[in-house]
Amino acid sequence: MRVSSYFLPTLKNTPREADILSHRLMLRAGMMQQSSAGIYSWLPLGLKVLKRIEQIVREEQNAAGWNEMLMPTIQPAELWYKNNCYNDYGREMLCITDRHKHNMLYGPTNEWQITDIFRNHVHSYKKLPNRLYHIQWKFRDEVRPRFGVMRSREFLMKDAYSFDIDKEAAKITYNRQFMAYLRTFNRLGLKAIPVNADSGPIGGEMNHEFVILADNGESEIFCQKDWIDTEVTLDKFDYNDNLQPIVDCCLKRYAATKTKHDPINCPIEADNLINIRCIEVGHVFYLGTKYSEPMGAKVTCADGRKKVVHMGSYGIGISRLVGAIIEACNDKNGIVWPEEIAPFHVGLINLSVDDTNCHATTEDIYAKLCSAGVEVLMDDSYYRSGAKLAIMDLIGLPWQIVVSPRGAVNKIVEIKNRKTGKHEEISVEEVLTRLVG
Amino acid sequence: MRVSSYFLPTLKNTPREADILSHRLMLRAGMMQQSSAGIYSWLPLGLKVLKRIEQIVREEQNAAGWNEMLMPTIQPAELWYKNNCYNDYGREMLCITDRHKHNMLYGPTNEWQITDIFRNHVHSYKKLPNRLYHIQWKFRDEVRPRFGVMRSREFLMKDAYSFDIDKEAAKITYNRQFMAYLRTFNRLGLKAIPVNADSGPIGGEMNHEFVILADNGESEIFCQKDWIDTEVTLDKFDYNDNLQPIVDCCLKRYAATKTKHDPINCPIEADNLINIRCIEVGHVFYLGTKYSEPMGAKVTCADGRKKVVHMGSYGIGISRLVGAIIEACNDKNGIVWPEEIAPFHVGLINLSVDDTNCHATTEDIYAKLCSAGVEVLMDDSYYRSGAKLAIMDLIGLPWQIVVSPRGAVNKIVEIKNRKTGKHEEISVEEVLTRLVG
Repeated sequence: MRVSSYFLPTLKNTPREADILSHRLMLRAGMMQQSSAGIYSWLPLGLKVLKRIEQIVREEQNAAGWNEMLMPTIQPAELWYKNNCYNDYGREMLCITDRHKHNMLYGPTNEWQITDIFRNHVHSYKKLPNRLYHIQWKFRDEVRPRFGVMRSREFLMKDAYSFDIDKEAAKITYNRQFMAYLRTFNRLGLKAIPVNADSGPIGGEMNHEFVILADNGESEIFCQKDWIDTEVTLDKFDYNDNLQPIVDCCLKRYAATKTKHDPINCPIEADNLINIRCIEVGHVFYLGTKYSEPMGAKVTCADGRKKVVHMGSYGIGISRLVGAIIEACNDKNGIVWPEEIAPFHVGLINLSVDDTNCHATTEDIYAKLCSAGVEVLMDDSYYRSGAKLAIMDLIGLPWQIVVSPRGAVNKIVEIKNRKTGKHEEISVEEVLTRLVG
Repeated sequence: MRVSSYFLPTLKNTPREADILSHRLMLRAGMMQQSSAGIYSWLPLGLKVLKRIEQIVREEQNAAGWNEMLMPTIQPAELWYKNNCYNDYGREMLCITDRHKHNMLYGPTNEWQITDIFRNHVHSYKKLPNRLYHIQWKFRDEVRPRFGVMRSREFLMKDAYSFDIDKEAAKITYNRQFMAYLRTFNRLGLKAIPVNADSGPIGGEMNHEFVILADNGESEIFCQKDWIDTEVTLDKFDYNDNLQPIVDCCLKRYAATKTKHDPINCPIEADNLINIRCIEVGHVFYLGTKYSEPMGAKVTCADGRKKVVHMGSYGIGISRLVGAIIEACNDKNGIVWPEEIAPFHVGLINLSVDDTNCHATTEDIYAKLCSAGVEVLMDDSYYRSGAKLAIMDLIGLPWQIVVSPRGAVNKIVEIKNRKTGKHEEISVEEVLTRLVG
């Protein structure tokens, strides 16, 4: 992609509306623009990152055995009324009346709806387990939306659901998602800690929140000190194995949300405990029969009896993750994207657009990288050199290649690693070998 | 994908709610389920098709030089009020009041919003042309939603926008989209006819609707008879060429919507004219300054003067296309997907799951096709043979491979082309050669 034909409205100054680092950086890097309070337009660079995260989440959900589907954003309120749950979200529920005076709502989550779909189509134990997910925009009418995409009103969430014959089977399914979450956050370059948490309006019998540590985090957890230095290493595992020992091992260290933590009965000594800020990025629930019982979601067993199914619900905040990752990955010059989710792999800067050698060298590298399938953002604009370098640092692509008139004469360019800051002058040939392999 | 772990709730009987063939087939093939009037959940098979169409549309938009972004579903009503356009959509506009009593709406289209983004960020003629699109759910509160996804309330649309310095430049941009539309529909296996049409609430100075012919279509056009037999062949062209001659050539045959057609002043003799049913699948508009003028979307020119930009708007109904393609591609046994958008390329049927040879042969073919990157739906269920074959016909995958106990002994299977119905018995080796190459 050429900067000259890309819509990348970076800002020199930080807009006043931003009260947190990730929000400031997203606005300055031209990733998004506010539409109204807590509602954003994703500009091209921001959308690329959002899509990368979405795709990693999708791949890991598929690998864990979930089927992707898509429920609509607007739900009939009837589904919620009937089950006396219409008020569970209080005024965060965005209520809508359509032209025929039907009560509708913009879904904050989809437990009732997926249970309705399940009970319409699945009637036999032979069809269990049933595992479905979707990636769809949700709305929660936050009283005070803030922190950019971290607490927005319209947000993108992956929510998965599961239906099993009994609690034991549901636990096996729960463990699969638990492991899928560890793998997902690992691929995103994040260290996520599973935490005992309140279940909130979703409810259910057991749940774990996944948080990442961040100084600007809205949430607080209490956890054993050694969580801080522990790397969650994921050895190869098969989803069909018994995952309980791995899950248990992961949960043996204490971690609880502020509201869940009970200082009096906490099993950990006070001097081994820390209180630390974090961002919630996922939440898994074993729901039991909270939704299936009132909805009559039953299957016929081998012996002819009808049995209410046991459910699970598993969310990841995809749009929130964009902000959360920036909180974890930045330096004084801007964003430092992890390789897997960087919007482009390489930023290629032509320092002197009208210089013939510079032009030829830049175009040559651009063509070769593109044809090798490397995603490149080439700055072919007439901005001054300092601005070009600053913008490239700000938007945080993993690699920068700088072509200057002096170097281009000898086919020498500068390559810089955004994360380490290490830069060196090497030949064009060597650049291609390093980046294409 | 194995049928045993896929959520494919096909129906034997046609639900009463469906009043059109494509709607019936989508329900019977387990592609979707109604959530409320005109609002649907996309089940896994349906979502796969939707995503395939979305991806083709995306690739062609990118190729034509548009940048993908994403605007939210919920817009502030203020944007519309200020420009006295809040009532243009009448009661089709889904109006919402949030908890702070702000008037919001579920976007039926995004002209005002994109113009707001443009005017915030683009101030110089040097940044033109500016070409942006997004693929997002829209809502139009149809008084009588019907025909399944063809006239639904919540629907997926690609809407692209453009900003140019003057009418002449805007026309060049318009022609790019015109050609991109022809290419897109071509890839989708559809013959689309560009038609003179009313601009409706979008407005503007010039527009063309793209329709596909279909007996069940909701719309009617009047066109020159020879449109019926004309194949729109798209020779290779470069988007940077002058596209006017190709566009003119395409428009030289008469075609107009029912409301636009004027029988008295029609340039075509009555006996060379036909009236035919069709489905609108796309619409391109040259908007002039309808939106940019009231919004103050101006750029500074080389000579320092400020100039109001000229806009275009270009929509494709992605969810509607799923239904439209089924209307065009079916036979008495079900759907017949064009190769590019089929949810899977191959349906692999094991006729006798407990037969050792059958099992081994099916698994062998499945593994080899999957590892070669061919998308396969393998029916490893205990349904009876007749049902398996009927379901595979119903869901319309391009190729079927049937493994029977008799054939499996000699490594012989049946391969069937869904479209032609031609089937033959060939060796497993030959099957792999044909499908993998």
